[in-house]
Amino acid sequence: MTRKIPSTALGAVLTALALCSAPATAKPVEGEGVAWEITEGLTTEVGPRMAGSEAEDRARDWGKAKLEALGFQNVRIEEFATTTWQRGPEEARLTAPYRQPLAITALGFSVPTPEGGLTAPMVYFPTLEALEAASKGSLKGKIAFVDHAMRRAQDGSGYGPYGNVRRAGPAMASERGALAIVIRSAGTDSHRNPHTGVTAFGKASPIPAGAVSNPDADLIARIAGGGKPMEIALRLEGRPQEKATSGNVIADLPGRDPSLPMILVGCHLDSWDLGTGAIDDASGCGIVAAAALAAQDGGQALRTIRVLWAGDEEQGIYYSGGDHYMKLHASEPHALAMESDFGADRVWQVKTRFAAANSDLADKVNGAVLPLGIVPHEGAAHGGTDIGPIIAEQELAVVDLGQDGTHYFDLHHTPDDTLDKVDPAALQQNVEAWTAVLKVVANEPGAIGAVPAHDEP
Amino acid sequence: MTRKIPSTALGAVLTALALCSAPATAKPVEGEGVAWEITEGLTTEVGPRMAGSEAEDRARDWGKAKLEALGFQNVRIEEFATTTWQRGPEEARLTAPYRQPLAITALGFSVPTPEGGLTAPMVYFPTLEALEAASKGSLKGKIAFVDHAMRRAQDGSGYGPYGNVRRAGPAMASERGALAIVIRSAGTDSHRNPHTGVTAFGKASPIPAGAVSNPDADLIARIAGGGKPMEIALRLEGRPQEKATSGNVIADLPGRDPSLPMILVGCHLDSWDLGTGAIDDASGCGIVAAAALAAQDGGQALRTIRVLWAGDEEQGIYYSGGDHYMKLHASEPHALAMESDFGADRVWQVKTRFAAANSDLADKVNGAVLPLGIVPHEGAAHGGTDIGPIIAEQELAVVDLGQDGTHYFDLHHTPDDTLDKVDPAALQQNVEAWTAVLKVVANEPGAIGAVPAHDEP
Repeated sequence: MTRKIPSTALGAVLTALALCSAPATAKPVEGEGVAWEITEGLTTEVGPRMAGSEAEDRARDWGKAKLEALGFQNVRIEEFATTTWQRGPEEARLTAPYRQPLAITALGFSVPTPEGGLTAPMVYFPTLEALEAASKGSLKGKIAFVDHAMRRAQDGSGYGPYGNVRRAGPAMASERGALAIVIRSAGTDSHRNPHTGVTAFGKASPIPAGAVSNPDADLIARIAGGGKPMEIALRLEGRPQEKATSGNVIADLPGRDPSLPMILVGCHLDSWDLGTGAIDDASGCGIVAAAALAAQDGGQALRTIRVLWAGDEEQGIYYSGGDHYMKLHASEPHALAMESDFGADRVWQVKTRFAAANSDLADKVNGAVLPLGIVPHEGAAHGGTDIGPIIAEQELAVVDLGQDGTHYFDLHHTPDDTLDKVDPAALQQNVEAWTAVLKVVANEPGAIGAVPAHDEP
Repeated sequence: MTRKIPSTALGAVLTALALCSAPATAKPVEGEGVAWEITEGLTTEVGPRMAGSEAEDRARDWGKAKLEALGFQNVRIEEFATTTWQRGPEEARLTAPYRQPLAITALGFSVPTPEGGLTAPMVYFPTLEALEAASKGSLKGKIAFVDHAMRRAQDGSGYGPYGNVRRAGPAMASERGALAIVIRSAGTDSHRNPHTGVTAFGKASPIPAGAVSNPDADLIARIAGGGKPMEIALRLEGRPQEKATSGNVIADLPGRDPSLPMILVGCHLDSWDLGTGAIDDASGCGIVAAAALAAQDGGQALRTIRVLWAGDEEQGIYYSGGDHYMKLHASEPHALAMESDFGADRVWQVKTRFAAANSDLADKVNGAVLPLGIVPHEGAAHGGTDIGPIIAEQELAVVDLGQDGTHYFDLHHTPDDTLDKVDPAALQQNVEAWTAVLKVVANEPGAIGAVPAHDEP
């Protein structure tokens, strides 16, 4: 639908003004408090901050200044050398049987298409299993398309299996001789915003690899259903960046007894470039910092709480901020670690991993969050990428506060990961849950230990 | 959040396959029937089809073949010369006070930025009224930003006043000396998909004009709130295309009495280029053709029903398919006209414009759709752009079947206007409503007339 513009534009404008003289901007709800300030600040004043980029560097400076202003101590940046990936121009279109532009984005660690792009027959695979069943060499001279639609799950569990189309599909296509691969985005939304994310080729030769949005994948599936041969023109110029500098930002709130092993709370500071990294993971950095501070309300905590805003989480498949933290800090005693990296929706479940001797402490943790509507969930806590290496190294206790992930994969790794998607009330519920847990564990005078990983059920 | 790729990718894949050996694709619901076939066909086999483009030409051929296959008669293409607009490369980023890429799209009839783009201070206006209040010359050397957020309305009424930021804002900025203008999209969604659409400069000098997505406008509003000067780098290379060929597709279902004035049902075949023109307006073309055919169930209608799939509706501000139809067919007697160009959601209201002598006929029309949950609405029916010129020329009776537009401006003129957004059940309800009305009006033996426009209340 369009509307004819009246011959007197002024007449139309006067009508408009009569109707909208009240402020017309329906702005998103603004939040308040430390977690919101951090989420708002990182997304507004820094924006997208790919690992290894100048923007990630600015984010570290922003983070250091912010944490110092909030009263954290020993705030420092710990830079490290890593391998990342840089986006380039990218476009795709079907050229047969119908001409259609496609909304595409390259996957991290894709290699560039040849000069001038690549046009080739495209072979449709309904699932990753179907691609796996193709014989070696069968995709020579062709581009593979893998349609492998992700389903929603409150706990995000679809990301493991469905995300494998992104993680393992490109190597699998390469091993079968494909010139390139295009996948349906590992995401649950219906917008023309494809989802990026890293892939890894392992021993396979790297090939150009991209993801189209769900509506584009629907289009390809419909055309494939018609049986006519498909051809695609592809231009993906992103490429690995062998030498890049990333870094962590670390800040402490010293405890009353510095001799006790500390509590580590982590998130990641880098983000994908398509959005502004609001839910992945500015909000996580806001939550952990806000809760560390709030845990001091009513008195300095017994144990030191350390905040780790890690670098190069998204692309750190070879060496991440978590790896670097462990490398530098393995000699310092830690007791327990927690991470927030699954958006900003409400926490609904808690998982723990404590030594058998800490069963009372586990009960206290579970009891502390029950009033917030958070229920204990079976299965061990595992933390995440940023705290994983130190957990493994020191066999730390872990608490996972599990957020509602029903809508997380609508936004994850897309241009839509922006501040307006953060509900300030849900963000605050996260801070309250984290604060409740930190008040328990950071004031625990007795030894805190973990079930050794090899003893887990 | 990311996930480490296990050292054995195969292990991960096997886990995946164990979980997803059932077909993984959660495809959108498929519809059936003529309206769905047309909507699916135009969006899949043609896709985006800008007025004056090679794709619009393909759409006419597709349409002619389809209407012939469906049994329509006298199916013909009527080409016409017109002025349209062609998109070019487009990008924007804030350069101060913070560096941020922006999701932007040019408005139709924007002129190109200078070679190498344009970087200039950006002045924030919260509303169109605020821009209007700026004095002549005050924007010299600057780029205007107008934040003028649209609100949702079931009947789409927000598009009149809020759409004026797009229709009249660029001319207003030009008259005040601006180098260019950027507006908040005239749309109600929260995705990084800006909304395009035409603007008109009238006597003002054309300037580059673009729209950013709502999340980008939110970002700009937040930064403006901080009070630091803003600067934007803009590259918009779209330009008017003075000589272009568009065309209408016309098809008849002759009535039992060809001497009676006919019933005209219209939609438009062209679409914006960003999406595939599913709700704007492939679905409208599907609805009118399906209903014209279904109105013959139980016997050939008394009056001829003519289908008009118009060209160049979206950019036809100087001469549209509706204008061309009137020019060629003004001598043929018409009785009543109807248009479908407001998406594919359910019809909830009916408006009519009949002569006083036709009050029984108006009652019959209202009664025919009441069982479908459609209620009569006060105010006169007006039709739309495609049928407007012939309505005005011949003072035709009009019936408007008003669709629920609550979500229409989430998708309108964006990349998200794709087939998955069409609910087959709602589409079918449209066809049923249209069929019910056509059965009444196309079988009316008596004279059908309209209240003359100058006599309207």
